[in-house]
Amino acid sequence: MTIEKYPAKAHALRVGQKLYALAPMYFSNAAEAPVLLFASPRTVYWPFCDQTQPFRQNRNFYYLSGCDLPDSYITYDTSSRALILYLPPVDADEVIWSGQPTSIDEAKAQFDVDDVRYSDNLVNNIASGFSGRTIFTVESLTASGHAKVLGELPKFVKALAEADSHLLEALEESRMIKDEYEIGLMRQAAAISNHAHLKVMSTMNLHTNETHIHAEFVYHSLRAGSKNQSYDPICCSGHSCSTLHYVKNDEDFAGRQLILIDAGAEWKHYASDVTRTFPINGEWTMEARAIYDLVLDMQTSCEKLVAPGASWEELHLLAHKILVKGFLKLGIFKGGSEEEILESRVSSAFFPHGLGHMLGMDTHDTGGKANYSDPDPMFRYLRIRRNLEPGMVVTVEPGIYFSPFLINPYIRGDEGLGFGGKFIDTDVLEKYWDVGGVRIEDDVLVTETGRENFTNVPKDPDVLSAIIMKVLGTS
Amino acid sequence: MTIEKYPAKAHALRVGQKLYALAPMYFSNAAEAPVLLFASPRTVYWPFCDQTQPFRQNRNFYYLSGCDLPDSYITYDTSSRALILYLPPVDADEVIWSGQPTSIDEAKAQFDVDDVRYSDNLVNNIASGFSGRTIFTVESLTASGHAKVLGELPKFVKALAEADSHLLEALEESRMIKDEYEIGLMRQAAAISNHAHLKVMSTMNLHTNETHIHAEFVYHSLRAGSKNQSYDPICCSGHSCSTLHYVKNDEDFAGRQLILIDAGAEWKHYASDVTRTFPINGEWTMEARAIYDLVLDMQTSCEKLVAPGASWEELHLLAHKILVKGFLKLGIFKGGSEEEILESRVSSAFFPHGLGHMLGMDTHDTGGKANYSDPDPMFRYLRIRRNLEPGMVVTVEPGIYFSPFLINPYIRGDEGLGFGGKFIDTDVLEKYWDVGGVRIEDDVLVTETGRENFTNVPKDPDVLSAIIMKVLGTS
Repeated sequence: MTIEKYPAKAHALRVGQKLYALAPMYFSNAAEAPVLLFASPRTVYWPFCDQTQPFRQNRNFYYLSGCDLPDSYITYDTSSRALILYLPPVDADEVIWSGQPTSIDEAKAQFDVDDVRYSDNLVNNIASGFSGRTIFTVESLTASGHAKVLGELPKFVKALAEADSHLLEALEESRMIKDEYEIGLMRQAAAISNHAHLKVMSTMNLHTNETHIHAEFVYHSLRAGSKNQSYDPICCSGHSCSTLHYVKNDEDFAGRQLILIDAGAEWKHYASDVTRTFPINGEWTMEARAIYDLVLDMQTSCEKLVAPGASWEELHLLAHKILVKGFLKLGIFKGGSEEEILESRVSSAFFPHGLGHMLGMDTHDTGGKANYSDPDPMFRYLRIRRNLEPGMVVTVEPGIYFSPFLINPYIRGDEGLGFGGKFIDTDVLEKYWDVGGVRIEDDVLVTETGRENFTNVPKDPDVLSAIIMKVLGTS
Repeated sequence: MTIEKYPAKAHALRVGQKLYALAPMYFSNAAEAPVLLFASPRTVYWPFCDQTQPFRQNRNFYYLSGCDLPDSYITYDTSSRALILYLPPVDADEVIWSGQPTSIDEAKAQFDVDDVRYSDNLVNNIASGFSGRTIFTVESLTASGHAKVLGELPKFVKALAEADSHLLEALEESRMIKDEYEIGLMRQAAAISNHAHLKVMSTMNLHTNETHIHAEFVYHSLRAGSKNQSYDPICCSGHSCSTLHYVKNDEDFAGRQLILIDAGAEWKHYASDVTRTFPINGEWTMEARAIYDLVLDMQTSCEKLVAPGASWEELHLLAHKILVKGFLKLGIFKGGSEEEILESRVSSAFFPHGLGHMLGMDTHDTGGKANYSDPDPMFRYLRIRRNLEPGMVVTVEPGIYFSPFLINPYIRGDEGLGFGGKFIDTDVLEKYWDVGGVRIEDDVLVTETGRENFTNVPKDPDVLSAIIMKVLGTS
């Protein structure tokens, strides 16, 4: 059986149940059971301009509707379980330019909801259908764009800030565990990225600038029907590989060792997020190969342990342990035991970000429970602070970077960082600055029995060499 | 001599002079002469998400600064002519992810301004430097994002709504006339589009779906360094060519006659906007060729008359006259003289938009003085209602569309449209629905002596045939 519609009603039911589990007090009287109200973004124009700003569907709205339209609303009655979608009324002037919008009948056929109406009925429908009920929402219904549709509604919504934070948690926990339909969309997003990454590697004969690989990746995504990238592609070379969220993507490759490309196609609002690093001319320098082998060891060792019940914090720690051991062997670290060096947190100067994050409709998806004010620099940016469960999709993406901004404060012994600096051998380090940075990132589903790795772009360093040298004609 | 910096000070001077010409009363006392204050957009995140919304520089801010950064401000003193740029202070946490931002010294070297400071000095600098002066702005300084920087500033800005509308007009009139530097940027935007359009045609062997030509166009733009399209590419085939602002771009070509692609690369915030229409298999049907020849006649006849002093309304009328004459010859129109038919406005059912618009940083650039409430349907959507002047860049883009939404109301004789419907021969029209639509659009600079057409993509119907049949191997 093919599941044809995005399972909005199943999602709404799940969110309602999570909300009940989190806050049963709101359900004690059935006549007052929560009604959920969500809005999709209003169409917004650039200032003094007749072009609309790029539209990105509100993720919570999409989760509960499967509907990609702006200016729309849904209500979900947790008691009757009726899910109703409200579309914007037809604007005759707009039809001249953009053609007929989705009709009520088309929407009924397309979306997994109980009814579809025009939003000019929304306020009356809520007033008459949900009299005395508590409206829960996570949206700002007083935001300017809503006034025209919602009118006086916000006045007679019982605003319960605490209830809305329960609703947000219910949404985040629901979205964290992907169902079969969502997994299908994420496999497709990953498949498009797999193809596009391979195409970038195998067209290196055409590329002399970071913008060329950016164009190549976007081209293959778009051709495959992925209208949006999950995030701005990060296309780096040489030193720019050490900037984690590099987006300039405009420097020449000349004289540089490595390319790092972190890019993922989006498929029907679901993300992929993949990074590969490889030598520009197909040949690894000794230093680049040493760092690459180390990151690959960190990546595959952690990926192998992805399974229900695994502690993400322990996997992250494992990656740091492998780094420390490897750096001692290379001589970049010195003068202490593995334990002392790990304890000093100096490895965070080279691997400053977390091992990975939840992946879903958002690239950094919900449910990770990060603690960005953690005083421990090794865990501050770790975006998952819980054990793995079946249905989570996570990225496994260790990296090692040679960034003066990150490393020099340790070497200088800046406040709170001095202890770690003594473990760095600056003479040995000197040889590694030109490596820039290495990151390897796969998208991995936690299954009942272990994992499914969606990413199959080559990462074996010899295979990468062979692909590039073949296309360059140097093999 | 190479002009290296975007001429922000010359633009500020021009805007100040226009403002003086429009509203000399504000300049009567030099001690109170206007100070202009502009803001670039604040960095905005998607709701419940750590990804920023796509950034598009505020066009007025860029015109007066040449600076592409968010979260920045400028002040321009119309009396001393000092132009000062305020950058956001460095956020140490952000440096970890994104590297060092533009420094004060780099900004001084890069931008044509008198001084560069951090924006945490802005309020004090205005309070101490411009005491008693009137601050003019077109921005909403009370918008939420500004509060952190501007603090109490809006309170001691003398808010003069009328003055601000004078300022907006001064900006619009200044931006309408492009200087040599801007013309250089627009030539480059057009050159990238010329190349990308030609590439789309000459890779038709690869394409079977609208999304493929979308990808092809974006690829060549991006490779040439154009990070943003001037607007969402409109990539149509067959019937979808009749939707003016079609953006679905996802239908198969099978069984269809024509492709219409309306796409333009942006170069350093300056737009290009080019449309070409050609047969999918290289061979024109008799009907498609007849309509194409007619639109080409409309386009080239009008383009030839672009020159200082030319009335845009007359050019637009000329395009309609050529359409009416051609439709009488083809038999689509009948039963009236050219004058009667023109007077009935029935040609607006087939050519519903205007002949073109101003082009600049915005695709529909400033200064056109459109009148969207004009009761005359032939002129309601005409985006230029004034005579041409040297330095204007305009699009010349007539089109003919076979859209049931637009034509049937005339045939049915809907209110106010019945008079025109009697001139349509529905039997003859029947043969043309499958043509879908044809539009041809070039970007043209008005020079002192005539015009410079930036667009050189082939538009001769035989040349188009030859290009496509050659790549398909059918010639």
